[in-house]
Amino acid sequence: MLKNVHDVEAPTHWYNVVADLPFELPKDIVQPRTPETQNIKLQLPLELVRQSISRDQYIEIPEEVRQLYKSWRPTPLVRAKNLENWLKTPAKIYYKYEGNNISGSHKLCTGIAQAYYYKKAGAVRLTTGTGAGQWGTALAVGCRSFDLDCKVYMVGASYNQKPYRRTIMQMQGADVVPSPSGAKQNSGLFLDQKKVDTGNMAFAVTEALADALSNEGSMLSVGSGEAYSILHSTAIGIEAKEQLSKLGETPDIVIASLGAGSNFGGIALPILKDNLEGSKDVRCRSVEPSACPKLTRGVYRYDRTDGSGITPLQKMYTLGNNFRTPNMHAGGLRYHACSKIISALYHHNLIEAVAYPQTTVFKSAIIFHQLEGVVPAPESAHAIHGAIQEALKAKEEGKSPNILFCLSGHGLYDLSAYEQFLSGKMNDYSPTDADIADSLEKLPLVEE
Amino acid sequence: MLKNVHDVEAPTHWYNVVADLPFELPKDIVQPRTPETQNIKLQLPLELVRQSISRDQYIEIPEEVRQLYKSWRPTPLVRAKNLENWLKTPAKIYYKYEGNNISGSHKLCTGIAQAYYYKKAGAVRLTTGTGAGQWGTALAVGCRSFDLDCKVYMVGASYNQKPYRRTIMQMQGADVVPSPSGAKQNSGLFLDQKKVDTGNMAFAVTEALADALSNEGSMLSVGSGEAYSILHSTAIGIEAKEQLSKLGETPDIVIASLGAGSNFGGIALPILKDNLEGSKDVRCRSVEPSACPKLTRGVYRYDRTDGSGITPLQKMYTLGNNFRTPNMHAGGLRYHACSKIISALYHHNLIEAVAYPQTTVFKSAIIFHQLEGVVPAPESAHAIHGAIQEALKAKEEGKSPNILFCLSGHGLYDLSAYEQFLSGKMNDYSPTDADIADSLEKLPLVEE
Repeated sequence: MLKNVHDVEAPTHWYNVVADLPFELPKDIVQPRTPETQNIKLQLPLELVRQSISRDQYIEIPEEVRQLYKSWRPTPLVRAKNLENWLKTPAKIYYKYEGNNISGSHKLCTGIAQAYYYKKAGAVRLTTGTGAGQWGTALAVGCRSFDLDCKVYMVGASYNQKPYRRTIMQMQGADVVPSPSGAKQNSGLFLDQKKVDTGNMAFAVTEALADALSNEGSMLSVGSGEAYSILHSTAIGIEAKEQLSKLGETPDIVIASLGAGSNFGGIALPILKDNLEGSKDVRCRSVEPSACPKLTRGVYRYDRTDGSGITPLQKMYTLGNNFRTPNMHAGGLRYHACSKIISALYHHNLIEAVAYPQTTVFKSAIIFHQLEGVVPAPESAHAIHGAIQEALKAKEEGKSPNILFCLSGHGLYDLSAYEQFLSGKMNDYSPTDADIADSLEKLPLVEE
Repeated sequence: MLKNVHDVEAPTHWYNVVADLPFELPKDIVQPRTPETQNIKLQLPLELVRQSISRDQYIEIPEEVRQLYKSWRPTPLVRAKNLENWLKTPAKIYYKYEGNNISGSHKLCTGIAQAYYYKKAGAVRLTTGTGAGQWGTALAVGCRSFDLDCKVYMVGASYNQKPYRRTIMQMQGADVVPSPSGAKQNSGLFLDQKKVDTGNMAFAVTEALADALSNEGSMLSVGSGEAYSILHSTAIGIEAKEQLSKLGETPDIVIASLGAGSNFGGIALPILKDNLEGSKDVRCRSVEPSACPKLTRGVYRYDRTDGSGITPLQKMYTLGNNFRTPNMHAGGLRYHACSKIISALYHHNLIEAVAYPQTTVFKSAIIFHQLEGVVPAPESAHAIHGAIQEALKAKEEGKSPNILFCLSGHGLYDLSAYEQFLSGKMNDYSPTDADIADSLEKLPLVEE
């Protein structure tokens, strides 16, 4: 049960944290090409390239994107008063709700922006890969908004297990196929032919790339893990900061779940800005699943960001691109690594990280649902659980911090996970140290 | 993609159309009891009894209910500008969006109110029957809001086919079982023992009644088809009228889907009031599915409202309580009859009715979804289709009426229906004249 807060304007600029970093980001390293991939050119709209390397502190949001943002932004900032009372905490808990758009998650911030830039770059059709479907949905909505055709390669297991996600993309006019799709054109690029049979996110992206390369007017949108995706998502934090400020408040702790980084960076970076400028000392805390603990158990090394073999290697916290995430429900948090900007911030102790097992996360999600009336996505539930832990800690310590967290999406497409939890059939899985070591052994060899 | 309109206050009173009717409502007729049912007393909170027979024009909404209404009301009134442009119609199309609460539909208006009155009457636990699950969800939320235990008997077929609906009730803390539940206590009351095996809505309500009778502190909430449910739903129309008025507009046509009548009555009656007082001539148009065409193909006769055999017979437009609704997706529009107030208004030509087949309705729903960014419930899609027809008619006639319709709920639990439609597997079913005649033959014999 939600109400929008209309007390602030939707932002006119995104915030680019690179301008304020007290260190240099490690440079990307071009991968050596194979005979199959040596002639392939990755086409990225010039504006997105510029945004990836820009050192401007603010980057203007194009007017067309701003108009579309206005259809659901500013998103609500809500005080979770019932939860506070139930926890008997002296802390104030605020959440920023990003589930109030048709794609259902924060990813629409970059879905709309990317579709705009690709259209401007001459594309008439976009292809992409999606895992659980949140990104595919966001891009499908973006494409429909700018009259682009959209083809989504959805990881086969999700395609079959999450028919609702598939349907919502189709309702937006997207052509959705399971990956591996069986299309001949798509098999040449891939690094490891064995994976053709099973299908995973990297393979879906590779199929989408091969499709784009072989169809005139088509371009690949890599996904929501890129630096410009974090940039586009900062609309969230900029709004939240202003909304809190209108209430006469500032955050003491900011909490968000961490997949590749666009959700966490989206809310945390505009607030971290004040820390970097020396005027504040807000704790920025990322929450990852115990099943995929890249910050808390990974290494800070160069690794591949996808399976195409042609994108540059980046220095990131990673579990290795061969890491097989154990069974878990928060599909958006499965990525093997953390984007280079967030990784560097963690490496320099400017942000925090914690990992929780999924059953404790779902327990908190049900409590939150009953008290606050929102079904959180499993990804967002990680932030809820993190916020509850901080609120309980504040109670123990007799402090009353302002806790802000991002409720990054609704969970109405994920009710089967809740059903599994309620029926007592949900288990926790964590990789063993040996699992992680095995995967890290296969990291590309790079001279640093 | 929705924004709330906060330009009006949530209403303080419900509107009771009975005060303004230019005719007397036909009296209810008590059913002769069988040996099994002769000692059963239906327990209904006194306040709900009063509301059922009241002739007051306005009935005050209790403060506790008003406070809870405020968590999602006033609901948004949205102008469907993209749809208007796409249709190239000179009409203005407004919709009232009732899907912005955790139950997902307008039924929470009465779910919250009923839980309040039952609690006040001493209940510590409510039982109810639900078909597709909308009503069960609304009552589950109501019970949780007032700390009542809640037991929902859900028609077995829906229990299995709509696991998401079941899960959302469980997440609200309700105990949900499929009906027939197999519990011994529940079999004695039922009129037709054959139906024990298959299960339907009437049997689910009967099970819920038997459960309530045999458990201290438990009471049955019959559902959302009662006169007081229509009363509680008038919050919708009262708000919509005021919201339009703030925009300097009045509606020329009001359109809503018709199940038993609470959705249609909820939005239409507060607007029909001006017609009854002679100051306006707004067309109030109900839309029913071709598969269950009670107003357009039923008869105005006395019939049973449920299968318990103990509630009074009411004069209504009905297809007969033995009517078997053909296969269709809008579960909320399956009811065999139309509530007595709405039926009487139709009988006196004060409202209109039309029926559409489901495939045309889903086609309009997809168009609306793509243009306006909301997934409508299949029930609500009937109103959308009706509104589109009126907008096209206005274009043909060169008129520019204000069309208001009720988007009574979201369809995020109904995506399997959309999938069926998109894959071309959806069919239309209408009863034959013989089907209807067969069912009407079994109507109770009543001297009028």
